[in-house]
Amino acid sequence: MIGRVALIGMGMIGGSLAAALRQHKLCEEITAYDVDRKALIKAFDLKLIDNSAVSPCEAVRQADVVVLAVPVGATEEICCSMRDCLPEQAVLTDVGSVKEDVVKAVERGLGFLPSGFVPGHPIAGKELSGIEAASEDLFFGRRVILTPTSETSPESLALIRQMWEGVGAVVEEMAIEYHDEVLAATSHLPHLLAFALVESLAKMGGSEDIFRYAAGGFRDFTRIASSDPTMWRDICLSNRNAILEVLNRFEDDLHQLSQAIAKGDAALLLDTFRHAKQTRDYFCH
Amino acid sequence: MIGRVALIGMGMIGGSLAAALRQHKLCEEITAYDVDRKALIKAFDLKLIDNSAVSPCEAVRQADVVVLAVPVGATEEICCSMRDCLPEQAVLTDVGSVKEDVVKAVERGLGFLPSGFVPGHPIAGKELSGIEAASEDLFFGRRVILTPTSETSPESLALIRQMWEGVGAVVEEMAIEYHDEVLAATSHLPHLLAFALVESLAKMGGSEDIFRYAAGGFRDFTRIASSDPTMWRDICLSNRNAILEVLNRFEDDLHQLSQAIAKGDAALLLDTFRHAKQTRDYFCH
Repeated sequence: MIGRVALIGMGMIGGSLAAALRQHKLCEEITAYDVDRKALIKAFDLKLIDNSAVSPCEAVRQADVVVLAVPVGATEEICCSMRDCLPEQAVLTDVGSVKEDVVKAVERGLGFLPSGFVPGHPIAGKELSGIEAASEDLFFGRRVILTPTSETSPESLALIRQMWEGVGAVVEEMAIEYHDEVLAATSHLPHLLAFALVESLAKMGGSEDIFRYAAGGFRDFTRIASSDPTMWRDICLSNRNAILEVLNRFEDDLHQLSQAIAKGDAALLLDTFRHAKQTRDYFCH
Repeated sequence: MIGRVALIGMGMIGGSLAAALRQHKLCEEITAYDVDRKALIKAFDLKLIDNSAVSPCEAVRQADVVVLAVPVGATEEICCSMRDCLPEQAVLTDVGSVKEDVVKAVERGLGFLPSGFVPGHPIAGKELSGIEAASEDLFFGRRVILTPTSETSPESLALIRQMWEGVGAVVEEMAIEYHDEVLAATSHLPHLLAFALVESLAKMGGSEDIFRYAAGGFRDFTRIASSDPTMWRDICLSNRNAILEVLNRFEDDLHQLSQAIAKGDAALLLDTFRHAKQTRDYFCH
């Protein structure tokens, strides 16, 4: 049982965590801050939180656990503004899709890297965003990756693991850099491709028809292009190097395929599609 | 009510059409041919067909309606082998994802373009393939695009429209070339990107972990990479020009995004993601 939790950010993730902490009776009190007052009012009306705060500073000053659930680009400013209010013994965690940049932002914002900071990432995205999309079972059965820093204390790590396991998640630990590489490939690159495809088609003539005749495959394929733009801008900038590495490789591979089509290289096309199908069927059945 | 239907190809589409024709009592008798004898046996065991044939020629010789449900690359050979058996008054249609190339293949195979030929395309794909994936309600509420040629007779067109409407589909007519352009953008390009992404990640080091940590977004995004490789090789080759046009545009757009990430152009990234999200939310809600 955690005492007081401060949630910074009442979007889909922050709201879902509040709901899940409540449902599983994992803490005594939840205080929340969000830059958007409406999200706080909604969270209060939904009885997801006990108190709202007008600033990150007010939210965290009596907290035992602080959870940052904001677009990663907002991390430094938030940390800066709670610098003088964060209790020394408080455990701090976040939910960002990028870890190296968040660790640096926390260090810059707070002026040091606290032993109570446990970087985290629940892999529980949806294309929806905002408190309206929050649900108490969002994390059930989902993976949460924790990437302790060189400073993270074992006690803090254990507490955050306990919190996520308490809401039904499967917790794993991973090195910061490795997390960012793996996520660049499995999450950041697909999101970029989905955004790029929709944008590319929207610019074509007759795009009304193009979208009208889109089948189920297209809908699924582009679902993640309905994700929050600010969050994804921040991710692209924060995980720039890892994303560019996988993106450049992908561009090369796609261009090879393009050339195979131009040359009518049936064998290469069939081999590529076969191997991709085998791989996908093996991993995602 | 159609009399005798010949189905050439007992894959997911052919099998589903047999089941749907049966369910809606739209014909008296179904005869089927497939290059894979096992698919025919299965269709017979499932009572989807009345008769099996050892060749396309045998299948069609007493048919009122012939439906080609094979990978588009097999069209010419199939038509060639039923050239001397196809009854003069029979109405012929197909289900291929590419239309211009199929029309040419039918003309080459049969030696002329019959007035009874109605090119068609049910937009009812799944990533599954084979008779095992057949279902009688596959076409219910789905669009079927018919692209009559200059030779197609109004009576043949009306009959095929009636058949598809009879199994619950929404039928539209479209010019051949326009169909191929629209489908290149909404279906062929997304499939190519999904195959290319899975293949690109599979070639990276640590691909086991990469796929292991893939979230729901990745699964949805790559679902279509589990589609039938032969069918997609054929589509890429048959609709080469239209595909290359959208693919080349996409490559340019993606490269611009890549450069925006490299330069840290936050404004361009946000604009692109916002516009893509708006477009997608508008068309696919």
